[in-house]
Amino acid sequence: MSGNVFGKSFQIITFGESHGKAVGVVIDGVQAGLRIGEDDIQKELDRRRPGQSAVTTPRKEEDKVEILSGVFEGKTTGAPIAMLVWNKGMDSSKYEKIKDLFRPGQADFTYFKKFGFRDYRGGGRASGRETIARVAGGAVAKKILAKKGISVVGYSTEIGGIKAKKFDEQEIERNSVRCADKQAAAKMEKAILAAKAKGDSVGGIVEIVARNVPAGLGEPVFGKLGAEIAKALMSIGAVKGVEIGAGFAAARMKGSECNDAMRSSGGKVAFKSNNAGGILGGISTGQEIVARIAVKPTPSISIPQKTVDIHGKNSAIKIKGMHDPCICPRVVPVAEAMVALVLADALLTQQARGKY
Amino acid sequence: MSGNVFGKSFQIITFGESHGKAVGVVIDGVQAGLRIGEDDIQKELDRRRPGQSAVTTPRKEEDKVEILSGVFEGKTTGAPIAMLVWNKGMDSSKYEKIKDLFRPGQADFTYFKKFGFRDYRGGGRASGRETIARVAGGAVAKKILAKKGISVVGYSTEIGGIKAKKFDEQEIERNSVRCADKQAAAKMEKAILAAKAKGDSVGGIVEIVARNVPAGLGEPVFGKLGAEIAKALMSIGAVKGVEIGAGFAAARMKGSECNDAMRSSGGKVAFKSNNAGGILGGISTGQEIVARIAVKPTPSISIPQKTVDIHGKNSAIKIKGMHDPCICPRVVPVAEAMVALVLADALLTQQARGKY
Amino acid sequence: MSGNVFGKSFQIITFGESHGKAVGVVIDGVQAGLRIGEDDIQKELDRRRPGQSAVTTPRKEEDKVEILSGVFEGKTTGAPIAMLVWNKGMDSSKYEKIKDLFRPGQADFTYFKKFGFRDYRGGGRASGRETIARVAGGAVAKKILAKKGISVVGYSTEIGGIKAKKFDEQEIERNSVRCADKQAAAKMEKAILAAKAKGDSVGGIVEIVARNVPAGLGEPVFGKLGAEIAKALMSIGAVKGVEIGAGFAAARMKGSECNDAMRSSGGKVAFKSNNAGGILGGISTGQEIVARIAVKPTPSISIPQKTVDIHGKNSAIKIKGMHDPCICPRVVPVAEAMVALVLADALLTQQARGKY
Amino acid sequence: MSGNVFGKSFQIITFGESHGKAVGVVIDGVQAGLRIGEDDIQKELDRRRPGQSAVTTPRKEEDKVEILSGVFEGKTTGAPIAMLVWNKGMDSSKYEKIKDLFRPGQADFTYFKKFGFRDYRGGGRASGRETIARVAGGAVAKKILAKKGISVVGYSTEIGGIKAKKFDEQEIERNSVRCADKQAAAKMEKAILAAKAKGDSVGGIVEIVARNVPAGLGEPVFGKLGAEIAKALMSIGAVKGVEIGAGFAAARMKGSECNDAMRSSGGKVAFKSNNAGGILGGISTGQEIVARIAVKPTPSISIPQKTVDIHGKNSAIKIKGMHDPCICPRVVPVAEAMVALVLADALLTQQARGKY
Repeated sequence: MSGNVFGKSFQIITFGESHGKAVGVVIDGVQAGLRIGEDDIQKELDRRRPGQSAVTTPRKEEDKVEILSGVFEGKTTGAPIAMLVWNKGMDSSKYEKIKDLFRPGQADFTYFKKFGFRDYRGGGRASGRETIARVAGGAVAKKILAKKGISVVGYSTEIGGIKAKKFDEQEIERNSVRCADKQAAAKMEKAILAAKAKGDSVGGIVEIVARNVPAGLGEPVFGKLGAEIAKALMSIGAVKGVEIGAGFAAARMKGSECNDAMRSSGGKVAFKSNNAGGILGGISTGQEIVARIAVKPTPSISIPQKTVDIHGKNSAIKIKGMHDPCICPRVVPVAEAMVALVLADALLTQQARGKY
Repeated sequence: MSGNVFGKSFQIITFGESHGKAVGVVIDGVQAGLRIGEDDIQKELDRRRPGQSAVTTPRKEEDKVEILSGVFEGKTTGAPIAMLVWNKGMDSSKYEKIKDLFRPGQADFTYFKKFGFRDYRGGGRASGRETIARVAGGAVAKKILAKKGISVVGYSTEIGGIKAKKFDEQEIERNSVRCADKQAAAKMEKAILAAKAKGDSVGGIVEIVARNVPAGLGEPVFGKLGAEIAKALMSIGAVKGVEIGAGFAAARMKGSECNDAMRSSGGKVAFKSNNAGGILGGISTGQEIVARIAVKPTPSISIPQKTVDIHGKNSAIKIKGMHDPCICPRVVPVAEAMVALVLADALLTQQARGKY
Repeated sequence: MSGNVFGKSFQIITFGESHGKAVGVVIDGVQAGLRIGEDDIQKELDRRRPGQSAVTTPRKEEDKVEILSGVFEGKTTGAPIAMLVWNKGMDSSKYEKIKDLFRPGQADFTYFKKFGFRDYRGGGRASGRETIARVAGGAVAKKILAKKGISVVGYSTEIGGIKAKKFDEQEIERNSVRCADKQAAAKMEKAILAAKAKGDSVGGIVEIVARNVPAGLGEPVFGKLGAEIAKALMSIGAVKGVEIGAGFAAARMKGSECNDAMRSSGGKVAFKSNNAGGILGGISTGQEIVARIAVKPTPSISIPQKTVDIHGKNSAIKIKGMHDPCICPRVVPVAEAMVALVLADALLTQQARGKY
Repeated sequence: MSGNVFGKSFQIITFGESHGKAVGVVIDGVQAGLRIGEDDIQKELDRRRPGQSAVTTPRKEEDKVEILSGVFEGKTTGAPIAMLVWNKGMDSSKYEKIKDLFRPGQADFTYFKKFGFRDYRGGGRASGRETIARVAGGAVAKKILAKKGISVVGYSTEIGGIKAKKFDEQEIERNSVRCADKQAAAKMEKAILAAKAKGDSVGGIVEIVARNVPAGLGEPVFGKLGAEIAKALMSIGAVKGVEIGAGFAAARMKGSECNDAMRSSGGKVAFKSNNAGGILGGISTGQEIVARIAVKPTPSISIPQKTVDIHGKNSAIKIKGMHDPCICPRVVPVAEAMVALVLADALLTQQARGKY
């Protein structure tokens, strides 16, 4: 109830603060017999890890995962899977100086208001480091989905105002911004470095696509697949908007344009377009599920900013340290994880809710 | 778990199909002693009701609410509040002819895939009529919020490509499209009627603002206020996108533009802008909470459309009957209800999660 | 969260007060395609209804059920099933006189403390009338279980100190106390009538048996089948104890006596005894599940009792009206319903949690 | 949903297997500002630890707790509290020989049926070692309760057929069986050692009392305090029965005996007896809450037993190793923890559900 649990049939709870001992996740609801190892998890964590390129923070964080329970002889047992990543070499000293200042665009002020207190060390629980636990949970969800042939892939479609124009999936993991358009990627990287040089940051748009999701997945009314995906993605710290399929563009369409016509061929139903983004009435259509998120520019910038301190006095802040000038490339694996968690949950819920 | 329940501390479950006996809601979690009557609910239902103007469906539905439990001597007792609206004068005959055809842009195909079966009468459970229950639940939530001075107001900011340019709150309930700009409202109405004349429909954008929400509301990580609002709003049938504060525009900002600077004056913290939309790190800042939704054009249009039937054969469909050429005006009270439900839930959850 | 919801995959929420407009239940999680009608529900309600015999209250309550949603053409649709029983001919006048007095052994005092308020009319929400909703929900659960060959049967094994000594299942519904031993039943009836003549009441023990439950049902740790059954049964107003299998007798056994030896014959595992009551480690063994509950004597007695009023003044109370001198016979269908609800929930949860 | 989560407002999830890397717990819902340290937890774990006396298993398990998150500068932060106990020096070799045999009275057979698989090492997830996590969670719950002056204490009232006759609370932690009657304790110890000498085991009864619980705690209908306590206690592996207040004895009382008369004195309401065990209508009365549990004799005995193996063949088993000949003394802290968890959850839920 207090926000640290996600999912119902496939449920994760995450814990840990940025500069605490460890961050971790417990996954409940995984069926017995799924082959899984620390390498399956590590592979995804390595995509989220800082220090991958010039456009991410140069902080060194190894982020090695350790599975504590729920796996025996290489397979899940049906018991909860607990996983830990120890926090190593955290340097809280640079936060000492700003421990009484609320960083603009961060959770400092609101956490202080909520909890009457502040873990100033690197953002505490509100730190992006918490997403390690999500990616670890998502890695297990991806394994479950893979058993059904479902895959989830994410990529940047816009960064610093530069839009991708082509789609070559092979390209995504080859460039520093995780963009499927090589030329656009180069421009995006440049835009990020330009902002970085000025002590500023840029935002962007990330798209996530889920393939081979069977028709009929999701729940009616409040449990719509799109609603669960919206919640999942909007729960990522930097995300300020979510759209499914045509999204905001649908608001400017006519009904005759927006409706996806249906045709049958070879016994299969095909849609002539995918404005619905693979979801109608909250239930999957069998088409690709397509979601896009608006990622705000990283709030930690070294340009001086006006703020107040915990005593209510006006002040200014200049944030030092090694921050991502654009978080999009590292949001990609997190967003994939969130969509995978939603789909794995829907899949297991579905199994309980078949028909007679 | 199966999608018909919303909320945790303040919880509603809705039931009922478009052409069944009744639609209703049970609200659990309302504290004892809240003064409430059927008129409080009816007032909101009347805003959602069809037949209000030329731009909504001319169907006549009285939608009178009846409170069955949980209220004694004009006050809540702490027991669940059940409310019913009987379905009267439903005419299922026009649906008989298209009972084997999947209407494009509707839940017909996906419900059939999920449940192996179809309640063809007016959309069954997937009908917009289900939102009666949401509005009734939201009316109680609004009463709870009002006790804390919190209000929720919604309005159309764009319809059929026409954008509102002014904001006069008094104007909203005076025009047929619930727009706060009188001139724009007139143009929007015209655009809707033009589409209607061609048997087509238009979409739009609705904004919802919550005022006087105290700083510190919401939960960390997955339970972020923005995440809950996104889920709530995306669970409305016609909604394809949700954004908070600057939303998708934030993706094109620099960090130095997007961060809302903070200043203290007279012992109070004020923000210089509200790109955050009143939420930082998932917790309310004390500013206005601002959300916007993309509403797709009504899928029920009388222009002929290509589709398939339940046997997998190609066919065409021409939907007759009295449908809303633009659903935005009637989405407004539903969206307000959803935001009110989220805030009432957060408020009660908060009470359980204070500090020592 | 506030106590009116039961179950997870198969979930019910009940509403309504003793002297309100109606009592009802909404069931969520029923799969599509289950054949069900009002007669399936009514049959069970008739077993719970007052006025069945000399040993129950002579109050006349028709308790006719009405299905409002979730059933179309005689089959469930997968949507929530709402059911209502209207309260008819309730006479609140006799409660007027005692509206400021706390009836001993009832929830009057504690509800007043919790809600700061009291619905004095017939116990309000704490009334046994609320169990109508449980029995209605249980009737649907029984239909689901029947599809898997599972049945649930309950009966009185002890009333007013008289113990049943034989077990003839045919006998149960033939006598007024729902006892499987004809001779004991006659004595039990006599004991009840003797207490009634003195304005007093008696308690007893009810046993519930579930048959054909497959081995492997239930969840580990906190979700043990025995734990869920204990909660379900202890949530019945008059129940003060629950035991599974050997129950409290197990506390006096040696390990060598208590352990149920296992033998294999014809490829099937058989247990030599059933001290476990069909549950080991919280998971079903495939044997009969056997639970017993201690039912306290009805607190509403006409013998004068010492009490206090809502202003804290000492007083005495003499409860008039038509109360059950022993509630056991009417607890039987309620207890069956609760066990059926637990098993249906476990069954659906199980489907989501198979193995790879 | 899969059984490893307990509670709602105050929620714990436990993980870990007997012979895995670690057992642990994550607690969600603890408010910020509660002073807590590893010593608070360790104190309770030391009461549960094996090897405390001649009547418990002589296994050496240090069981040192480590807090990983949610505590900063000695106080809770409102973030989830994760705690670990590493499994050290586990010897799985003795389980190798019996890895294909189902131990009678244990979860071996049922887990195999449920998960299609068996972690034979010391019972895996079904091991009593899992209760370390419960006791750790309960220790935090006790701290929360202590802030409200509420305490929870448990003790053995019967072991091997020997009943306690006196109550001297000081005595409880002084003897090996945690009995409040010194003379009875000596006899109980003797009975246990006698059974042990024969390779057998004995059961008993443990009582748990909660003091200073304010009137008005708990939820109506399904969420009754007694129902939650029953579930909590019946979820302990060895427990086969639960009773509240007079419990099964109430079944043999008259209404005039069982009802607790109420008197007012000095502005306070007092009850003349406590047959209700501190709970009426599911809500606390303000009296002591009294629960009793039936603890079955330890199933692991060295006397040979008939059983079958995983291939369905008849066999016999003689369980070697160091098992508790009576588990009651070590169940005491676990049962206290479970009651503390229920009360802390009810307390936080209550805060969200006050009155206007």
